[in-house]
Amino acid sequence: MIRINILLLILAAFLSSSNTHALVSDFCVADLSRSVSPAGYACKKPPLTVNDFVFSNFKAGNTSNFLNAALNPAFVDQFPGINGLGLSAARLDLDAGGVVPIHSHPGASELVIILQGRITVGFISTDNTVYQKTLMKGDIIVIPQGLLHFQLNAGGNRASAVLTFSSTNPVAQLVDVALFGNNLDSGLVARTTFLDLAQVKKLKAVFGGRG
Amino acid sequence: MIRINILLLILAAFLSSSNTHALVSDFCVADLSRSVSPAGYACKKPPLTVNDFVFSNFKAGNTSNFLNAALNPAFVDQFPGINGLGLSAARLDLDAGGVVPIHSHPGASELVIILQGRITVGFISTDNTVYQKTLMKGDIIVIPQGLLHFQLNAGGNRASAVLTFSSTNPVAQLVDVALFGNNLDSGLVARTTFLDLAQVKKLKAVFGGRG
Amino acid sequence: MIRINILLLILAAFLSSSNTHALVSDFCVADLSRSVSPAGYACKKPPLTVNDFVFSNFKAGNTSNFLNAALNPAFVDQFPGINGLGLSAARLDLDAGGVVPIHSHPGASELVIILQGRITVGFISTDNTVYQKTLMKGDIIVIPQGLLHFQLNAGGNRASAVLTFSSTNPVAQLVDVALFGNNLDSGLVARTTFLDLAQVKKLKAVFGGRG
Amino acid sequence: MIRINILLLILAAFLSSSNTHALVSDFCVADLSRSVSPAGYACKKPPLTVNDFVFSNFKAGNTSNFLNAALNPAFVDQFPGINGLGLSAARLDLDAGGVVPIHSHPGASELVIILQGRITVGFISTDNTVYQKTLMKGDIIVIPQGLLHFQLNAGGNRASAVLTFSSTNPVAQLVDVALFGNNLDSGLVARTTFLDLAQVKKLKAVFGGRG
Amino acid sequence: MIRINILLLILAAFLSSSNTHALVSDFCVADLSRSVSPAGYACKKPPLTVNDFVFSNFKAGNTSNFLNAALNPAFVDQFPGINGLGLSAARLDLDAGGVVPIHSHPGASELVIILQGRITVGFISTDNTVYQKTLMKGDIIVIPQGLLHFQLNAGGNRASAVLTFSSTNPVAQLVDVALFGNNLDSGLVARTTFLDLAQVKKLKAVFGGRG
Amino acid sequence: MIRINILLLILAAFLSSSNTHALVSDFCVADLSRSVSPAGYACKKPPLTVNDFVFSNFKAGNTSNFLNAALNPAFVDQFPGINGLGLSAARLDLDAGGVVPIHSHPGASELVIILQGRITVGFISTDNTVYQKTLMKGDIIVIPQGLLHFQLNAGGNRASAVLTFSSTNPVAQLVDVALFGNNLDSGLVARTTFLDLAQVKKLKAVFGGRG
Repeated sequence: MIRINILLLILAAFLSSSNTHALVSDFCVADLSRSVSPAGYACKKPPLTVNDFVFSNFKAGNTSNFLNAALNPAFVDQFPGINGLGLSAARLDLDAGGVVPIHSHPGASELVIILQGRITVGFISTDNTVYQKTLMKGDIIVIPQGLLHFQLNAGGNRASAVLTFSSTNPVAQLVDVALFGNNLDSGLVARTTFLDLAQVKKLKAVFGGRG
Repeated sequence: MIRINILLLILAAFLSSSNTHALVSDFCVADLSRSVSPAGYACKKPPLTVNDFVFSNFKAGNTSNFLNAALNPAFVDQFPGINGLGLSAARLDLDAGGVVPIHSHPGASELVIILQGRITVGFISTDNTVYQKTLMKGDIIVIPQGLLHFQLNAGGNRASAVLTFSSTNPVAQLVDVALFGNNLDSGLVARTTFLDLAQVKKLKAVFGGRG
Repeated sequence: MIRINILLLILAAFLSSSNTHALVSDFCVADLSRSVSPAGYACKKPPLTVNDFVFSNFKAGNTSNFLNAALNPAFVDQFPGINGLGLSAARLDLDAGGVVPIHSHPGASELVIILQGRITVGFISTDNTVYQKTLMKGDIIVIPQGLLHFQLNAGGNRASAVLTFSSTNPVAQLVDVALFGNNLDSGLVARTTFLDLAQVKKLKAVFGGRG
Repeated sequence: MIRINILLLILAAFLSSSNTHALVSDFCVADLSRSVSPAGYACKKPPLTVNDFVFSNFKAGNTSNFLNAALNPAFVDQFPGINGLGLSAARLDLDAGGVVPIHSHPGASELVIILQGRITVGFISTDNTVYQKTLMKGDIIVIPQGLLHFQLNAGGNRASAVLTFSSTNPVAQLVDVALFGNNLDSGLVARTTFLDLAQVKKLKAVFGGRG
Repeated sequence: MIRINILLLILAAFLSSSNTHALVSDFCVADLSRSVSPAGYACKKPPLTVNDFVFSNFKAGNTSNFLNAALNPAFVDQFPGINGLGLSAARLDLDAGGVVPIHSHPGASELVIILQGRITVGFISTDNTVYQKTLMKGDIIVIPQGLLHFQLNAGGNRASAVLTFSSTNPVAQLVDVALFGNNLDSGLVARTTFLDLAQVKKLKAVFGGRG
Repeated sequence: MIRINILLLILAAFLSSSNTHALVSDFCVADLSRSVSPAGYACKKPPLTVNDFVFSNFKAGNTSNFLNAALNPAFVDQFPGINGLGLSAARLDLDAGGVVPIHSHPGASELVIILQGRITVGFISTDNTVYQKTLMKGDIIVIPQGLLHFQLNAGGNRASAVLTFSSTNPVAQLVDVALFGNNLDSGLVARTTFLDLAQVKKLKAVFGGRG
């Protein structure tokens, strides 16, 4: 019995951190209520349980809407356990006719992993080449960081995909929402996009923008 | 018509790279036949097509083996389009009784996204706490970088998962293979693991090790 | 005299690299003709001269065009000395009525430093807030990485700015060019942007797109 | 009208962060009064305005001094909006005879963009090569990270430059100040620089050092 | 005298940070009592002294134990001055027969610098190659990040080494402790390691594990 | 026997890389004869041996010189196995009166680990504070990245230290060599350092500079 205690004591000396500070290198579960820095959220204080590392709502959302689409994110705000670890996920469901409008993720690359159905995915590079393909179960496409891209249900049935990202908070910027869903002046939008003013005003009405 | 040409010319001036060098910042598809640096493979030269960004074999592998398990990686060697983008994926299938032995991924964190069935996933932190849970469809668990972990089929039917990683080549180090599948001297293994020599020799035989 | 030689010899021992390999840590001027990796271009071999670190064409471009605008980049393809150093610059000139259409720089933040005239700069965050202001000489605005933004001459005379970026190749993605300047199918553009098909076709004609 | 509300609701689901935590990935304006970590300052809490991203004092400083020089920094302490974004700027003005003494920026590379006049810029690499040139409007020189360098007005009139850096706080270490402007023992300075003790004491008097 | 004051005033303008915030870029001594983020500990507030940068207990530990080994870490929890600087050290002493069992450092590479005696060091790569050698004074071996490795006294006298790491908190994960020193179910350990259940239970008793 | 082969085959499927490309994530031993990129040297092609990871000349150099000092580097050019791993080491020996003149390591932090004797180490921060202490065996001091520092033998006997760095090639920039050991014009040195011209010329003669 003495042998056990001594041996454990010795081995413990090889474990560099006390329990209090062990989080520094193994992981850093986000404490969403505390301060944020450029590196992410402050770490939750011990004790932790396995549930700090589990996200349990990775299910299809409600697609009964005009986009016939649902996105269910497991980003750091929903899944604090990934804080500081550089990856996240989301589930995408597209009913027949479903679409994810053109958007980008500033600073995050994305894998689209098809689970069922057929999805047309396209991205445009900065030298203005279109990379587009209709994918089905067993296919993955990578969207390099920050590039504009879209997803469309290419079949007659529901299509689903797992999305994974190289960032813990790969917030999307949708072109429509950025242009038409806020208080940007309509004339300014027309000037900086070459869209007709009437088109801008029409979409401002759809997306709830002012000005 | 002249208007079109001039406008394009002007806008083109805002696109900073010539076609030849556009890969520097948008993406860098691996040329597996060329040199490797600490940052990854050298970039494939243009022209590229959408298939450079697509992996089309993300399917269940053959689980008719002693592990009742199959892992199908989409890492940079199988999926050159992810080179330099910091993420990858793999598909895991576990038949009844299936197991992924204890292993780690040096330098990569992992998400285990359950697709079907029930999988027990556990990891051990460096302060020697066990974080373990049986997960089912709709659950995700994160395995922080470099920590020892395992997966077990916890039900009577096939279980499947999408694995994603924060690295383009999250090679696994299996403890069994490292200890018993090479030419490490059996006595040395016993000394550095406290296993009985007979146990070491027995597993050396199973895993094909010498010495 | 002997003293000099010995002293130099000793001090030289503190300079860790031979001349051949000194580039590893001080700098890595791009050899644009050689291989590219995710970390940038391969380094130019010695000897180097000061001109490898100088860009001598940082002047106003020709603004006699429909945008009344000129952008003159000093990115890594024009200025190989910045390879691997994480920053670059460009000069922007806007005549009366000049505009830089809405665009983003995937993965690079930007400073807009006004030299003369008045420029309205705006960016939209992913929570859809517009940050917009008319700036003059003595003002700087920062555009966080990857966000959509625009610049407009807000006065009656020429306006000029120095732009700097947190990347050696901050290639721009212009929304107009991405949507209307390539072979993306017009119907698909309409579906993924909610623009009227007629509007899409009209701008396809302007920006030279097909399909 | 109902259409609008539903559509916005759906699109909003694609924006991953609530307003409260949106700062995690878009930007992180420094709250200078809160804690600092190795990654920078803690983020300012919302609401933010465009002025959080604007610096409005980028003007020539007073050059009526012994250096005939003025440096006006827009670093993170003066310009909190750049926190975490990896770049900053400064304005340099040199009257006739003006000089910026030999210094380095630990960990930051620098671009010197000449606005007017003639400036001689030089840096010394660790293999002890001097890279030096007299620059004028339209020229940029890059100073690789951490290397000793200097700037001198090379003409008879005022010379000005925009400096940009690959860091949000590229604090300078001036050799003179480090050697002669503090309480380093004069004998120790002499021993570690090979300067004559009289020279050390003379400059200690000039730069206000003690010891 | 006036000259001194003016000159200092001018030079001070080139030092970008006020004293209050100077820590942002020079260093960030850990305040172990404050919040932790993925980038490390919050910075200790000034004033600082040289002792904040000094660790004074880098001595041989007590090797009178079953491992005949002692490890004395100078990691961030013992040496707050290294916070954010990406390196640390430890002293290893092995008496005759001493051993450091198989372990890994998630995310840190290691140099083993032999001071005295003879030490056999080995690591196993993920392609299952063993790299092993007996080293003596004047030898260094590098252990690439995250790989399983071990150290053994290969002589009849005390052997000592300086260990250095590419991380401020290179906590070790010992295979024995992870498998046998906690509450992992013995049957589960057997299934995920292929060890005999009796062997598992025997070592559970030695290492104090339960279950 | 069949069991062994099948089991190995299955486990092999979990090892993601073929032998050919296994270097991508485990390690990247420098091939000093091939191309260099900002991330380091290209990787040596297999086969590798343990000697690729061992440096065998970590011994005291010859201190019979004017500095009474010897530095023996194990940087990437001498120790190719550390390429891409972010750390290196050097051995420093100082005889009585020995000195390492004021210098900096652009972009690398340093630990000075005293082995024997007494060494005075000092560094100066950018807010011009001197951090200086005389250290002996059992002491470590950290020199934050890029700051000017020096080492002096503070006793009557030989003093030795292990230096470790957070970079694979922490080349030093010695102030004396940079100012007086090259072809920088003496007048220019005087202007940018405020040293007397006679002092500059005197040290130019000592350090072999021209001009």
